[in-house]
Order: sequence, then C-alpha cells, then structure tokens
Amino acid sequence: MQNNLETPALLLDEARMQRNIARMQNRMTQLGVAFRPHVKTSKCLEVVRRQLAAGARGITVSTLKEAEEFFRAGVDDILYAVAIVPNKLDHALRLIRAGLRLTLLVESVAMAGQVARHGAEHGVCYDVLIEIDTDGHRSGIKPADPALLHIAAALQGGARLKGVMTHAGASYDLNTPEALAAMAEQERARCVAAADKLRAAGHACAVVSVGSTPTALNARQLEGVTEVRAGVYVFFDMVMADVGVCTADEVAISVLCTVIGHQPDKGWVITDGGWMAMSRDLGHQSHGYGLVCNADGNAIPGLEFGKANQEHGVLQWTGEGDISHLFPVGSSLRILPNHACATGAQHGQYHVIPEQGGAWQVWPRFSGW
Amino acid sequence: MQNNLETPALLLDEARMQRNIARMQNRMTQLGVAFRPHVKTSKCLEVVRRQLAAGARGITVSTLKEAEEFFRAGVDDILYAVAIVPNKLDHALRLIRAGLRLTLLVESVAMAGQVARHGAEHGVCYDVLIEIDTDGHRSGIKPADPALLHIAAALQGGARLKGVMTHAGASYDLNTPEALAAMAEQERARCVAAADKLRAAGHACAVVSVGSTPTALNARQLEGVTEVRAGVYVFFDMVMADVGVCTADEVAISVLCTVIGHQPDKGWVITDGGWMAMSRDLGHQSHGYGLVCNADGNAIPGLEFGKANQEHGVLQWTGEGDISHLFPVGSSLRILPNHACATGAQHGQYHVIPEQGGAWQVWPRFSGW
Repeated sequence: MQNNLETPALLLDEARMQRNIARMQNRMTQLGVAFRPHVKTSKCLEVVRRQLAAGARGITVSTLKEAEEFFRAGVDDILYAVAIVPNKLDHALRLIRAGLRLTLLVESVAMAGQVARHGAEHGVCYDVLIEIDTDGHRSGIKPADPALLHIAAALQGGARLKGVMTHAGASYDLNTPEALAAMAEQERARCVAAADKLRAAGHACAVVSVGSTPTALNARQLEGVTEVRAGVYVFFDMVMADVGVCTADEVAISVLCTVIGHQPDKGWVITDGGWMAMSRDLGHQSHGYGLVCNADGNAIPGLEFGKANQEHGVLQWTGEGDISHLFPVGSSLRILPNHACATGAQHGQYHVIPEQGGAWQVWPRFSGW
Repeated sequence: MQNNLETPALLLDEARMQRNIARMQNRMTQLGVAFRPHVKTSKCLEVVRRQLAAGARGITVSTLKEAEEFFRAGVDDILYAVAIVPNKLDHALRLIRAGLRLTLLVESVAMAGQVARHGAEHGVCYDVLIEIDTDGHRSGIKPADPALLHIAAALQGGARLKGVMTHAGASYDLNTPEALAAMAEQERARCVAAADKLRAAGHACAVVSVGSTPTALNARQLEGVTEVRAGVYVFFDMVMADVGVCTADEVAISVLCTVIGHQPDKGWVITDGGWMAMSRDLGHQSHGYGLVCNADGNAIPGLEFGKANQEHGVLQWTGEGDISHLFPVGSSLRILPNHACATGAQHGQYHVIPEQGGAWQVWPRFSGW
C-alpha cells in the first residue's frame, strides 16, 4: 500500500464494506423483513448511501445530530433509537416540521405523557415506539410489565403508538452460532409477545423492530418482525470476530500508524497511534487496543498492542529478532479496531483505500450531538 | 444550575479552571522556570489564551493539527512533543515557512539524520530536542545510552540541537507527596544529566524541558531545568484526584446528562451519557466511567457509573429509596471525568457555566490530526 498520508489515519476498505453490506441485506431479504441500518457506526453519508442503495429502508440513529445530518442529505425516514427526554423535544419538533418522518422511543409512562403533551402543545403528532427489554441487558419494558399498557395508553393526543422496538445487546457476550440463534429467537419472541399484548388491549402496533449485528446474522426465522436494525456489520471489528460473526479479513476499517521509536531492552515498538486514534475501547480484552497488522493489512503474530497513551501506542514484540530492523522507525502498521463505532468516532474522515490504479478518496464523518 | 442544554454536554467551570491555572503558574514562578503548558488537554483557544495571559511562555502540542490551529490564532512558539516521523516533515516545514517557531522531537539516530537531510534539502534548519527516558515509562533515550551522543552528532546541516526533553509519565501511578517529590527529582536529575553529557561532548544544550502535572506540582527544586510542561492540571480529573494532586472540587469539566429511564429491579438509573460522551477511559478503575454528581456538581454517594454503551450510561444505585423518585426521568446529573483529555476529545465544544446572572458561553474545541 503506497500513500503519503500523515498518520495516524483511519483507513476504509470499500470492497470489504460492500461485501458486508451485501451479506446483511441479502440475509434480511431472505428472512422477509425490512432492514433499517444503524448509522451510528459510520456517521458518514457515503457509507449510508451505499446501505440504502443495497436495499435498506430508512435508517436508525443514536443522536439527533445524526438525524439532522442525514435528513439534510435526503434521508427522510429515521428512527431515533434512544429514549427521548424533555430537553431534546424541541429539536425533534424542528426536524419534523422541516419534513422528516422521525420516530421517537419511550420506555416510561412519564415520558410518554410528556411527549404527547409536547406534541399537542405544538400541533404535531409524534410517532413513537415503546422500547422492550428482551434480554435484561439495558433499557426497556419487559413484555409482562403492566407499565407496557400504561405507556401505550399515555400515547394519545400529540403522540401515537407506532410499535415496539428491542435491541438484544446481550448477544455481544456470546460466541457460538447456537447461543446466538437462541438469543435471536428470544429477541424475536419477546418483542412479538409485547406487540401481541398491545394488540390484545386494542392498540395498533404496526412496527415490530428488533436487532443487533450478532442476532441479525444468526436468526433462523423472524415471524412477526417487521424490521431489523444492525450497525457495526457495515465495518465489523475484533469484538464481532470474537463473537464469531466475522473474520479479521472482513474488518473494513483500520488505523494506519507509523513507528516512531523503540525500547529494545523491553521489546517495545512505539507508534504514533495512541488511544486518541484507537479509542480506549479494549473490547473483549483479547486483542489489546486492536489487532496489529502490517501495511498490507495482514496480522503480525507476536506484536501485541497492550498499552497506549494519547498519541503513543506501545506494542510489545514477543518474537525473535531485532525490532529496530523488523519494524524500523518510519515504517507503517495497520491496527484493526476492537470496536468500529468507538475507533471511528476518534476521526474526522475515512481515507478510502483505492482499487488498483485508483486514487485515494476522503469521506468525511461527523460527531457530536 | 438552570439551562436548556441538549444533553449530553461538556460543561466547563471557568472559575475552577482559572484557579488551576493560577496555582500551576505561581508554582512555576516560585521554582524559577518557564512554563510551557501542554494544550492537548483542552484543544481550545479560549483556554490557552488564559494560560498565556497568566504567564505561560509558548505551548506544547501532541499533534501538528494543534500546532496549526494555535499558530493560526497567534501562538508562535510551539513544541511538538511526539517524536517526528517522515510523513509529518512536509507539514512541519509548511508551518515553519509560515513563520512558526516550531521545535521538533527525536529519539533515534535514524530520524535525527532524516530531519537534518529534510531541512538541508528544503533550506531550513529545524530546532530539535532529544527525548530522554527518565522513568522507563515510554519513549526516549536513557542519559547513559551511547545513542544520545550519536543523535546529537546527526543533528547538523538542516537541524540543530536545541536541548533535551523528558516526561515522567510514571508519576500517574504514584499517590503520595513523598513518592511524587522523589519522581520529580528523578525526572529533573536524569534530564539534567543528559544535558550535561551533551555539553561535555561539546554540544550546545540550551533547553532542559521536564514535566507532568504530578511532578510539576511536587518538585521541590528544579536546578538545571529551563522549562516545565504540564497539561491536565488546567482541568484536573479523577485520575489526578487519585494521584493526590487535586480534589474532586477542583475538577473544572463535567459531562451533563439526563436520566432517560430505570430498571428498578436492578437499581439501574439509565442516562443519555454513554461512552461517546465520557470516552472509554476507566482511569484507575476506582470511579467507573466517572464520579456521579447532581446538577450542582456535588457527588452522589451510592450512585456508581459502572457500565456504558454508546449513548447510554448505566448507573447502579446502592442506596435506599425508590430510584424513579430519587432520580426521575428528565432529571440532570453531572459526571466528573476520569481523564479530562479523553473526555474532552469526545466533544466539539465546552459549555461555560456562567457566573451568577451571566450568560452561557460556548467555546469551540477541535480534534483530529
């Protein structure tokens, strides 16, 4: 790989990304569900355009900044998949008045009532999903919780119940196809059960939205589900490799860094890729700050990225030979990230590796709220 | 604290920051050394202006982006304190040609030679410090290493030796005044020894630059040192509180977040401040993702921030009472960061808390390389 990039720099292998996009979209099409990718991983219009071109219907966001940026670029069907709070309602209102079909999420009677009142006060009717807890991992209402029907009842006037949503984040801690398939079925069945309970009480519940990258890739059937969400599949990362849903060869982003020095007595190779370039995300603790590869992206066994300061990576060489000759000052290394969402967030752009003979492209990404 | 900020948001207590700035500058003045603050912590012109107004002479940066941004704003004496590599020399050259007094750092004979050749080829003479290893923590040449004189000898033609620099990062792992004072003395003595060795061999060595926040605040004398560098003192953080050089009441930045839900069975209070707002930096592992405080900035004993997803913080309540009444949906919390440099980097601006009766200000910060 020849280039003159200043390091550290975030590289994107577009061909790998396109294969990841096709793999997920094909699977969703086979399972007969709509796919609404979570764009918090890339925060990049060029990436999202390719997901939509492959067949995605609408997008999922983790911040109203994402909703705003992608709406400005023409995406008009967006689910904001974090429970809304009062200080964000005016922002949501502005986006809806500008023409965005924005869906909000609630998981409490208190907020359902506030959303409905805010909508009524301002003459809009917010589309709302109720967050369902299907795995005990984080947020949401359990299907059997009486609060489910109380929330639905509170969604009237300036808000309407559109459906239910869950995210089986517990899938990240599993690592066999059987366990992942079982978690996918649990995610599906419990979310559908919540929808059925709402319908039995007389509420319309058009949307049943589930998903995480590991469950989406391991679900055997999705009866009753209307749409699936997944985010990190677009790039994959070493956590997903540990979970078993990709290989290191499918990870589409990496951090290019340069050897800046050595401590030969300790076997340390010091680079200009520290935690500012990688993030502090240690993933499943199995790859240090990331998997160390050579400039062509092939893993270097024996070179472990265990320690990082802000702009310094400290790599431990456990093999034979003189490190200052094996990894001379000025030479390039590429690090596959533990967590693509976290590493990506440290950078303002992707440097897209050209096909043979092509030119490097720069795709901007944004950050913030 | 009344405001309508969308959360999560990075807050800055300017009065605390000014006290931190004055404390460090007064100490440096008493010790009779110049002070060159490391601006990688704030990456904010408004902050750096206040450090310079208090008496700082020049600044230290961790990226050429910082050098470029602060030079554009009028700061013309900048030390880039990460060992230079070939892919950054053209950028350094552009800044120098534009009028910046930029000092580079090397720690190998190979790079010393390359810097000198690059300068000669382009008709400039780079000012260079040699990085000295005084604590075995990371980078640099030990004072007794024969390479020290070889590096100095290679700095000719397009480069000139300006002095030596060290950073006793190992001080972050200490926590008593005695141990910190001893580390400060070790940092001083070994860096001065390297300077003396260079002078004895006939090299000019005008600059002897040392520093870290803990050693700067605990040094008892700095004979032979010409300048001190420190960064995180400007805001302080919970790691520095663990080291014992500040209290939580002196930490000048915090992340404002909002309660978005609960899992009452587990005692979980869920907020919209996840790792994207805090960073993944767990510091010394003693405060989870940060110290949880109420909206006024007072610590809440029994509420622990142990788990975070991208846009969700999961706080564990270990006290008595109903969490949905103690910390209702929509209520505000403030989190004091483990590591101010890492948490700051997740945000595009500081929201500066007004004095009584004043207005909120927004101070932008930049990121990237």
